[in-house]
Amino acid sequence: MSLELYYWDGLQGRGEFVRLALEEARVDYVEVARGKPSKGLGTEAMMAVMDSPDEPYPPFAPPFLKDGDLVIAQTANILFNLGPRLKLAPEVESLRYVANGLQLTIADVVTEAHDTHHPLASGLYYEDQKDAAKVRAHDFIDHRIPKFMSYFERVLAQNPAGDDFMVGDALTYVDLSMFQLIDGLLYAFPRALKRFGEHYPRLAALHDRVIARPNIAAYLDSDRRIDHNESCVFRHYPELDKAAT
Amino acid sequence: MSLELYYWDGLQGRGEFVRLALEEARVDYVEVARGKPSKGLGTEAMMAVMDSPDEPYPPFAPPFLKDGDLVIAQTANILFNLGPRLKLAPEVESLRYVANGLQLTIADVVTEAHDTHHPLASGLYYEDQKDAAKVRAHDFIDHRIPKFMSYFERVLAQNPAGDDFMVGDALTYVDLSMFQLIDGLLYAFPRALKRFGEHYPRLAALHDRVIARPNIAAYLDSDRRIDHNESCVFRHYPELDKAAT
Repeated sequence: MSLELYYWDGLQGRGEFVRLALEEARVDYVEVARGKPSKGLGTEAMMAVMDSPDEPYPPFAPPFLKDGDLVIAQTANILFNLGPRLKLAPEVESLRYVANGLQLTIADVVTEAHDTHHPLASGLYYEDQKDAAKVRAHDFIDHRIPKFMSYFERVLAQNPAGDDFMVGDALTYVDLSMFQLIDGLLYAFPRALKRFGEHYPRLAALHDRVIARPNIAAYLDSDRRIDHNESCVFRHYPELDKAAT
Repeated sequence: MSLELYYWDGLQGRGEFVRLALEEARVDYVEVARGKPSKGLGTEAMMAVMDSPDEPYPPFAPPFLKDGDLVIAQTANILFNLGPRLKLAPEVESLRYVANGLQLTIADVVTEAHDTHHPLASGLYYEDQKDAAKVRAHDFIDHRIPKFMSYFERVLAQNPAGDDFMVGDALTYVDLSMFQLIDGLLYAFPRALKRFGEHYPRLAALHDRVIARPNIAAYLDSDRRIDHNESCVFRHYPELDKAAT
């Protein structure tokens, strides 16, 4: 049976981190919420799993993966589970925990990127929290992006196996997620990231290497890759962007 | 060699989720940042690991665990790694991913609890973001706590092995973390949680069962358990608390 990926239709969001791994590995998967209701798919089919009173361990939110009877929730957890099967996890077991630690740190940045446009309440409209969003976004640009990116650049620099990959000496899902994080930030904050390659040369090179991978390039060029947009965690609101100090 | 837990001295914080598992299992561990500099311990010893230019995979932030040469970062990752060794993870492997998914959802609530007092910038003082904090805290009380807690209550209700534990039919680190989350919220928002037991009877019973466990009771009564305070993620600022609507 194919793997079933459950995530909101119409945006990249957190589901994209899982998608990139599935696409790089070229495994079959079903995008449940994007499918047709006539085939038992669509957003309602996703909500039915979440709201099911019979599901042994229902997920709190998408993305989640259904693999036979097992429902796996939370982006980093899905990747931790899929990684070895997709040959996108370190072979050395201890390094799998290093990979997971990095993936969770990437997830923290994603949450902070989301909160730049929704600092007061995820249930309120952006328009109703624009002033607070500006304060949070500028703090993110001036303090948080440099702190996180300097750290990730240092991880590459200190990787004992060289600075081509985040963990070990081969591609893992962490590299794909690192690409996606940078890509999202470049979309949301182009002015802030104008000198990204200058400040973080190893990360910029990693980003470019991932884009050039044949399976990733084919995916990014396909209809399956939804463009960045303002329903996503990474939103381009020009008023929140500014040059980094 | 003993396990070394690295976390800021003087507060429970995210380190407490790891501590509770170590204490329940009664394994030896060293609290590095709380130790004496004359013994090579203390906050500087912790910073030395984080800032080391030689550490193969340095952690971004505490808590992290050092187990021989391996440095494991991120709370949920530490527990995922320790769980089986401490006999605090499900024996069925697939359920370990269920446990990790729940643990990561608990971590999401912890982050949101932190952001109630720091919605604009973690680097700004609370006093400089009090108005925004009030908006975010009240949204957390009215919308987010009920959403998360209804979900966790439902996980207990739908657990095929019964509603005594979050996952499977035996205690796991997720139950200990669930206790800590509820305990932190009860401290921070006593008015909001006044009818917690009425709304979430299974979670309240779980909280009480964990407190009554001999090793946990002994720990909570010891000097090793630092009291809740306003350096922690769970802070009691009366002006942020209110009765839930």
